[in-house]
Amino acid sequence: MALLVVGSMAFDSIETPFGKTDRIVGGAATYIAWAASSFVQPVQQISVVGGDFPQQELEELAARGVDLSGVQIKKNQKSFYWAGRYHLDMNSRDTLVTELNVLADFQPVVPAGFRRAEYVMLGNLSPDVQLSVIQQLEQRPRLIAMDTMNFWMDTQMDVLKKVLNKVDALLINDAEARQLSGEYSLVKAARTIHRMGPRYVVIKKGEHGALLFYKNHAFFAPALPLEEVFDPTGAGDTFAGGFMGYIAHSGDLSFENLKTAVVVGSAMASFCVEKFGVQRLKEISSDDIELRIRQFVDLMHFDIDLVQ
Amino acid sequence: MALLVVGSMAFDSIETPFGKTDRIVGGAATYIAWAASSFVQPVQQISVVGGDFPQQELEELAARGVDLSGVQIKKNQKSFYWAGRYHLDMNSRDTLVTELNVLADFQPVVPAGFRRAEYVMLGNLSPDVQLSVIQQLEQRPRLIAMDTMNFWMDTQMDVLKKVLNKVDALLINDAEARQLSGEYSLVKAARTIHRMGPRYVVIKKGEHGALLFYKNHAFFAPALPLEEVFDPTGAGDTFAGGFMGYIAHSGDLSFENLKTAVVVGSAMASFCVEKFGVQRLKEISSDDIELRIRQFVDLMHFDIDLVQ
Repeated sequence: MALLVVGSMAFDSIETPFGKTDRIVGGAATYIAWAASSFVQPVQQISVVGGDFPQQELEELAARGVDLSGVQIKKNQKSFYWAGRYHLDMNSRDTLVTELNVLADFQPVVPAGFRRAEYVMLGNLSPDVQLSVIQQLEQRPRLIAMDTMNFWMDTQMDVLKKVLNKVDALLINDAEARQLSGEYSLVKAARTIHRMGPRYVVIKKGEHGALLFYKNHAFFAPALPLEEVFDPTGAGDTFAGGFMGYIAHSGDLSFENLKTAVVVGSAMASFCVEKFGVQRLKEISSDDIELRIRQFVDLMHFDIDLVQ
Repeated sequence: MALLVVGSMAFDSIETPFGKTDRIVGGAATYIAWAASSFVQPVQQISVVGGDFPQQELEELAARGVDLSGVQIKKNQKSFYWAGRYHLDMNSRDTLVTELNVLADFQPVVPAGFRRAEYVMLGNLSPDVQLSVIQQLEQRPRLIAMDTMNFWMDTQMDVLKKVLNKVDALLINDAEARQLSGEYSLVKAARTIHRMGPRYVVIKKGEHGALLFYKNHAFFAPALPLEEVFDPTGAGDTFAGGFMGYIAHSGDLSFENLKTAVVVGSAMASFCVEKFGVQRLKEISSDDIELRIRQFVDLMHFDIDLVQ
């Protein structure tokens, strides 16, 4: 049961109250692949990088069961680059540099072997790219999930709406959900977004957890309370990778199983923020993940029988 | 199993994006008493009001099993009055008017029949008043919980620390927890506050839910996702009333039971915000409460057995 992933593979320079990195490897699809490959293989990766992207990183991903035959390497160009600085509360950040480079004219090509993927995660990219990937598929996947951002709402809402109409799940943060729906209440926002296409709406609230909406049902998973959030970069993508990796692994599209997938996503995100970049995702074992999910049980479980 | 409650009974004028009230009845102890009396009776109320406080409101509380013999009525003075305006996000508000009136020189007197209370909720008031109440008790209650606010940290930290050292549970919002502890991380904040006395620390995050910390354990209850938060005034006090009312009703001080109490508090708070003032708390039945708590189960329960 393969998971097809589309998204950026890039360099980031990150400054948080705890430290500063030089250019390190990042990008939505990198985080998604690392998180998802803890649960499902192969991850069929579609992306584009420049000649500057480290061969070592590609080899590590391949060793994890990530099939990179859909990753275009443009030897004479540079990889996408982002630099940002987080504020003390880690919920807001300033973008210092954005260099699109290879992403500027990215034309995704879905290899023949990827076109019957049952599970698809469209990372945050131009809705044109997301749409192109969907159109190259030979059969309707069992589940297509997507991320997006305010920039695409501001500049390409028409195409974005076409993509939304073709997907099953939207994973989006709270500010983006409000902008997309024009509703302040997240309950109303989810209902409006359901009508745009996605029957599952996951609203990510960073350190305040994540909500899953389906029909008239809601489920909530908190973020794990941590002593320190070292670097939030990639936490949302890691959430998406854990969420979709777990669903692809289980093959179970019931609402009950999607609830568990939200917890798995939250657990993976809680690792991501402990160090810069994908470092923690590389280190953790399946025992670490199991233990972390048990912490979520302790954090969330209460005994209803006690209430008379 | 009585619950002793100390706090303000007052008038509020409230402006939210949804509407505006004239002076309506409010005050921490009013919300606490309405919420707690859904679970435990008697609620032994200690407060002070002016001659302007409506007799009708006192009669309604008495009919709910709230013993008002500790409520001083100062006929020639005016009740505490607060006016405020909420911003669109409902998480921040401007105080427009604060008139202390009878609260300015409040000397609480604990009636003889209240001095052996097993459960005590010290609402947000001057730490001097909170300390005086504790000192008038004839035996150590099974559980003393308290609320406080940034104003008392700024002006009376010494007395506040004395009170903290005598209580079992502190219920406080996230900004206040950070100020009291000097720690940004809520995990670290709770640990620092544990060392000040309270073995249970409940950190309320408004629409983002509430955390319960005990030793190295954490539990989280979300706020119920609502279509509209009509008026958040009193939600924190209603939470405290539900939390302590449920604990007093059950008589069970285990951590597991306190988790359930946090959910009960969250459920009661979710009613409070649906209308102005204590109106919803007056309307709801035990069936409504039961149903609401079931919604929290749906919102929070996931099936761990699904995770392999």
